[in-house]
Amino acid sequence: MSESIAALFKTLTQGVYVIGVANGEERNAFTAAWVMQVSFDPLLLALSINPQHSSYRLLKEGGAFSVNVLKHGQLDLAARFGDPARDDALSDGDWTMGRIGLPVLRDGLAYFECLHECPAGDHALAVGKVVDGKLLDSRAKPLTYRDTGDLDGASALFPDALEES
Amino acid sequence: MSESIAALFKTLTQGVYVIGVANGEERNAFTAAWVMQVSFDPLLLALSINPQHSSYRLLKEGGAFSVNVLKHGQLDLAARFGDPARDDALSDGDWTMGRIGLPVLRDGLAYFECLHECPAGDHALAVGKVVDGKLLDSRAKPLTYRDTGDLDGASALFPDALEES
Repeated sequence: MSESIAALFKTLTQGVYVIGVANGEERNAFTAAWVMQVSFDPLLLALSINPQHSSYRLLKEGGAFSVNVLKHGQLDLAARFGDPARDDALSDGDWTMGRIGLPVLRDGLAYFECLHECPAGDHALAVGKVVDGKLLDSRAKPLTYRDTGDLDGASALFPDALEES
Repeated sequence: MSESIAALFKTLTQGVYVIGVANGEERNAFTAAWVMQVSFDPLLLALSINPQHSSYRLLKEGGAFSVNVLKHGQLDLAARFGDPARDDALSDGDWTMGRIGLPVLRDGLAYFECLHECPAGDHALAVGKVVDGKLLDSRAKPLTYRDTGDLDGASALFPDALEES
């Protein structure tokens, strides 16, 4: 492992999410950081998931996933659902059922229920292999999208209500 | 526009980046928030770009893009490269040429040079249409991936050096 490349990639700002998947009675959840919005019309979220993960099968079979946004301070939940040895993920009172049947965390910051769909709506997804890179300032912190407020006018692009499935 | 749906989507944590594209002498740059890592082996970044944007043609023709991470405090740069009316993006001393010929910001927090590549390496990209969602706590802040330190052991997944193109 390379500490310097890890530090370089730490400049990419991501949130922390617990992803819920289900196929009928079979349900699972796992922690993920690789989630982002990729389109406004329709509203699409992209999730990058390891196809080796046991939840990948459920995601494909169920054709949907929930994104549960963790609050600052919920590191315990991130750790719990990031532990591959855990087998009681959804057996307690932390979860409820979302509108389209996905497991949804009761006490998260927010949640989304997403139908699996490709391609990426009004945007194109470009996936790039990293061939070079450099950390230019190890003491500075990244600007976050949140810090920009409504600089790009994006709040006007959201619809008045989420479209029914 | 819906303030509540905008607030819901603001719980997704993203960074702010200036994307550089080039095809020979022709170069451009634009501000984007929809960038994330999607694979460790190979190291891949995904970018969601509006196909209507003038830079999309350059990205496809050049087959590559640079991701310049902005520092906290560089809101001016985010605004400048987010302005569609701007036409002097790369005419001053802010830029240098990266190893594979992409425009790279001298004074950013970090940069990446990426070769356009699909599919998403060791991960699968799932794109989901948002059919439901709710902001559960309007006062809490999201946990960021940075806050988790090396909880998921991801630093061990980075190679010792970036692979040559």
